[in-house]
Amino acid sequence: MNPKVDLLGIEDLAVKDITQYLDTAEKFIEILERPIPIIPALRGKTILTLFFEPSTRTQISFSMAAKRLSADIVSFSTSSSSVKKGETLLDTARNIEAMKVDGVIVRHPASGAAKFLAERINSFVVNAGDGAHEHPTQALLDIMTMRHHFPSIKGLRVLIVGDITHSRVARSNIFGLKKMGADVALCSPPTLLPCDIDELGVEIDHDLDKVIGEFDVVMALRIQLERQEKGLFPSAREYRDLFGLTADRVRRMKPKSIVMHPGPTNRGLEIDPEVADGPRSVILEQVKNGVAIRMAVLFILAGGKIE
Amino acid sequence: MNPKVDLLGIEDLAVKDITQYLDTAEKFIEILERPIPIIPALRGKTILTLFFEPSTRTQISFSMAAKRLSADIVSFSTSSSSVKKGETLLDTARNIEAMKVDGVIVRHPASGAAKFLAERINSFVVNAGDGAHEHPTQALLDIMTMRHHFPSIKGLRVLIVGDITHSRVARSNIFGLKKMGADVALCSPPTLLPCDIDELGVEIDHDLDKVIGEFDVVMALRIQLERQEKGLFPSAREYRDLFGLTADRVRRMKPKSIVMHPGPTNRGLEIDPEVADGPRSVILEQVKNGVAIRMAVLFILAGGKIE
Amino acid sequence: MNPKVDLLGIEDLAVKDITQYLDTAEKFIEILERPIPIIPALRGKTILTLFFEPSTRTQISFSMAAKRLSADIVSFSTSSSSVKKGETLLDTARNIEAMKVDGVIVRHPASGAAKFLAERINSFVVNAGDGAHEHPTQALLDIMTMRHHFPSIKGLRVLIVGDITHSRVARSNIFGLKKMGADVALCSPPTLLPCDIDELGVEIDHDLDKVIGEFDVVMALRIQLERQEKGLFPSAREYRDLFGLTADRVRRMKPKSIVMHPGPTNRGLEIDPEVADGPRSVILEQVKNGVAIRMAVLFILAGGKIE
Repeated sequence: MNPKVDLLGIEDLAVKDITQYLDTAEKFIEILERPIPIIPALRGKTILTLFFEPSTRTQISFSMAAKRLSADIVSFSTSSSSVKKGETLLDTARNIEAMKVDGVIVRHPASGAAKFLAERINSFVVNAGDGAHEHPTQALLDIMTMRHHFPSIKGLRVLIVGDITHSRVARSNIFGLKKMGADVALCSPPTLLPCDIDELGVEIDHDLDKVIGEFDVVMALRIQLERQEKGLFPSAREYRDLFGLTADRVRRMKPKSIVMHPGPTNRGLEIDPEVADGPRSVILEQVKNGVAIRMAVLFILAGGKIE
Repeated sequence: MNPKVDLLGIEDLAVKDITQYLDTAEKFIEILERPIPIIPALRGKTILTLFFEPSTRTQISFSMAAKRLSADIVSFSTSSSSVKKGETLLDTARNIEAMKVDGVIVRHPASGAAKFLAERINSFVVNAGDGAHEHPTQALLDIMTMRHHFPSIKGLRVLIVGDITHSRVARSNIFGLKKMGADVALCSPPTLLPCDIDELGVEIDHDLDKVIGEFDVVMALRIQLERQEKGLFPSAREYRDLFGLTADRVRRMKPKSIVMHPGPTNRGLEIDPEVADGPRSVILEQVKNGVAIRMAVLFILAGGKIE
Repeated sequence: MNPKVDLLGIEDLAVKDITQYLDTAEKFIEILERPIPIIPALRGKTILTLFFEPSTRTQISFSMAAKRLSADIVSFSTSSSSVKKGETLLDTARNIEAMKVDGVIVRHPASGAAKFLAERINSFVVNAGDGAHEHPTQALLDIMTMRHHFPSIKGLRVLIVGDITHSRVARSNIFGLKKMGADVALCSPPTLLPCDIDELGVEIDHDLDKVIGEFDVVMALRIQLERQEKGLFPSAREYRDLFGLTADRVRRMKPKSIVMHPGPTNRGLEIDPEVADGPRSVILEQVKNGVAIRMAVLFILAGGKIE
């Protein structure tokens, strides 16, 4: 038997792994277009969704992916207030193992939680977001979406705008895009840049107006108002003025460039409604590709074969 | 391809539409009596239940209906406190669309929410209650139940008692029963009658004791204590004295007349326990017919065919 | 048609009933080892999980059991704060009946709730814990686990340590073990012993250090901090000093003796981490056997036949 494979982050993936996820997801996009978009690939497999942070979208996306592969789903979600987290995750890991679940999709507020779990159980583990660390399926679906709009990721100019410090989406995208040969730049208030920023190998800009015209992809991050200590930026209004994807700014983007957002959007804060719904926005393509990517991830980790 | 059909309210339905739902539901009642009450009619279809207000019963009823038709269900429920509602519904609509869900069952505290959603997505939409506006499957199951007890809805005398202003159940029933030819009367404190009451084409009574003996059907509405501004009626005790379906009052109803309630009941407030559980009560028939009606609605909107 | 059978408690079971559950569960352990651990035994049956108290583990265990038997599951959980419980349980019972659910798995904070429900509906009922009364599937999985480690339950020496008063796990185990011929002893602060202790036919000890070396099985109960009125034991530290399964104490247990715990553990309170994870611990076997026992219970109550 082969050793199990987990998907804990993009940082540890080889380019060929990323490509395999992306190429498999393309096959599933075709299946999703069928009148009955369900294949029996994972019949008899049981997948547990284990969400220690609420996330409706991600949970629905994974659930849809699992159902379309004919897997059984068992869901467990809990709020941070009702559990002593470290202990529960450990106990939960062991219980899962004992119940013979095939795979676990875990979201947890602590960085490293998915890895912690993966090291302790034989079930495969998919990281659906661990603290400010990684959210690998988000990066995969983002890169998949970029591949649909540009001939190659190599040499693509990508700007990520917003709260980099608290963003696992940013981190996973930076790792993935760099591996695939893209040039990645960040634009953010200095207070929202992580300490290890120099190690990430990305350009830093603070003046969005000056640089926005140079990029093929501009990705706005969600401002996680609830996650920030007060004082990291002066006000929502000032944030929008300096870093929001306003209609005015987006008008100055390159021809054929696209606007991305991992959702859910704070409309009028990091992105204006007319931009989110405008011609450059690929936000809904991201959502659609998300189901296909999650199908590909579950399929590959569960050892499925396409006939 | 035919244009999609939604079920947003009874007000917009033709009599032949109502009859089609009712007749299809009768076929499903037969299927529900089988040892294995499941048919593959909607295999491969994915239905999303999207509940912005808690409602265990309605959600279970729809879920049972979908499972008996072999559809896959994905559930999303959220409390009003955790979302900025308007924005979330809009975003949610677009996300659903992108994930290629076949149908959405939505409950929302805002009147018009189901229509808002239906106009923005290609999935069919079933209104499972939108504010004080409509709750069409409830009216359909109520009319189905009446059809089981009386030879015809035409000419049937129906009295609806209680908080008409806040009741989508009352509104949907009034629309449906009027279309089918019933005589509908309302009995309510004047403070609980809606402003547009004259347009509904119904009789108004305020003295339940005087009129209760004239009706074939007496339907008590649930007093939504949580939804009422204070002061709309003096006290629970006075409400029961004047408008409660007490054993004493119900004794004066016509022979063969029935008592209905959409559930859950406030026993001892709008209906006495011995009435709710008594010989005139058809409350549990309503529940049973509810599953069949919801099967019929999902089946018809999803374009299913009975072999 | 045979009368329906419920599983409300161990107190009412005959030895042959217990043995039938245990033997059937052994067959399911084999099935759980298969690559596709699913059998169509309950295809077309609908099981409702009705949890009025949160319990992730038990709910997941029952859900997994039902899915592995191909039953459909509908889940309803609610917090105690949002319902007037007595009324809701009664109404809920009647609604379930009307919706033609095959079986109901109920957890409720009130002793007797499962019986109350079972007397009012035709669906079979499994008690998944009712107040401080019984938790029969827990006792069955515990006895199953003991059977795997010892040639016979007859004559087995079992010590249950902890908060007996509030423990349905203790009560169900006492009933089951006594019926099967085990010697059961309790070790607990006097304040945590129930009033009816003399009727249970068990030895009472208060000095764990003195007696721990005499038993084949030592089962620690979870200290339900949230359920206890203040003042029943002086402090967590003193509890651990006197009644905790510390590494030191466990070292003095008999050769081949085992340590059990129903989970979730309060590590460092009633059991030390090195004991919970140590060589005598069978806690994860309990979890694994739990799925098999719940499969057996659902299978037998639903009238399934193994081909």
